[in-house]
Amino acid sequence: MKQAGTLAACVLLTIAAIAGTPTASAQMDPERAERAAETRQALLRVMVWNFGPLAAMARDRIEFDAERVAINAGRLAALSKMLSDAFAADTRGHDLTTEALDVIWERPDAFAEKIRANMEASEALVAAAATGDEGAMTRAIGELGSTCGSCHDDFRVDD
Amino acid sequence: MKQAGTLAACVLLTIAAIAGTPTASAQMDPERAERAAETRQALLRVMVWNFGPLAAMARDRIEFDAERVAINAGRLAALSKMLSDAFAADTRGHDLTTEALDVIWERPDAFAEKIRANMEASEALVAAAATGDEGAMTRAIGELGSTCGSCHDDFRVDD
Repeated sequence: MKQAGTLAACVLLTIAAIAGTPTASAQMDPERAERAAETRQALLRVMVWNFGPLAAMARDRIEFDAERVAINAGRLAALSKMLSDAFAADTRGHDLTTEALDVIWERPDAFAEKIRANMEASEALVAAAATGDEGAMTRAIGELGSTCGSCHDDFRVDD
Repeated sequence: MKQAGTLAACVLLTIAAIAGTPTASAQMDPERAERAAETRQALLRVMVWNFGPLAAMARDRIEFDAERVAINAGRLAALSKMLSDAFAADTRGHDLTTEALDVIWERPDAFAEKIRANMEASEALVAAAATGDEGAMTRAIGELGSTCGSCHDDFRVDD
């Protein structure tokens, strides 16, 4: 009986080793993990699409357009609120094409704090856009960009 | 001179034939066209991510969650307003992995009408969610889904 128990333990360890997934996320269906990765990548792509022109305006690379700032600021505030849900699926241990680091799920409070900073900076940009003051908008764009960069520094694969 | 002119015309026609892009979109940088396709696909993926659970609730496949309906309805309304910008780049004639049909840019008014219907149905779902009435939400989810399907029928490659 002892041998049978040892064999069973070995089989389980071997399965775990092959799967390479000693964490809880091993329970997630691989297709679901892939969908989760694609979803969060899609969300970030839509965010970049909306933030890109604002960053270019703040850096004087394209003409400042206060109306566009107001529109995209509102979008970014809405998108920022989706980040938490988009990263809820713990995909650690899955074989994915992803820049998301495991530390996202290892230090969930620190990651949540980065999201909170992004949401607040988005709302601050919405408020700045409502004033119509170009300087205030430019500063708020910079501050929003900093929250993106700060999260990428800790939670995303280095470029 | 006439021969030189004919030769020049032939060269231009040959270039156009090789590029396979007789339309105005031939002017767009291929990388920009690819980014545009990726952006609209990302936007639609984020929309599907938010609509999927609501469709499942409306079909009794998962438990009805009025709070989730309200959250996702608000998101879908915000996302719907991005569709027009996301499809603004006319990528006809580019070699892209895309399900977007050329008719999107051939019949822009008809396409804009589909987007308008989607925006209105999203707002109607937001309103239904605010009432807290499950039946009203379920109907509004169905109506929103119909606007998605109606657009896909005409403007997306058949599955």
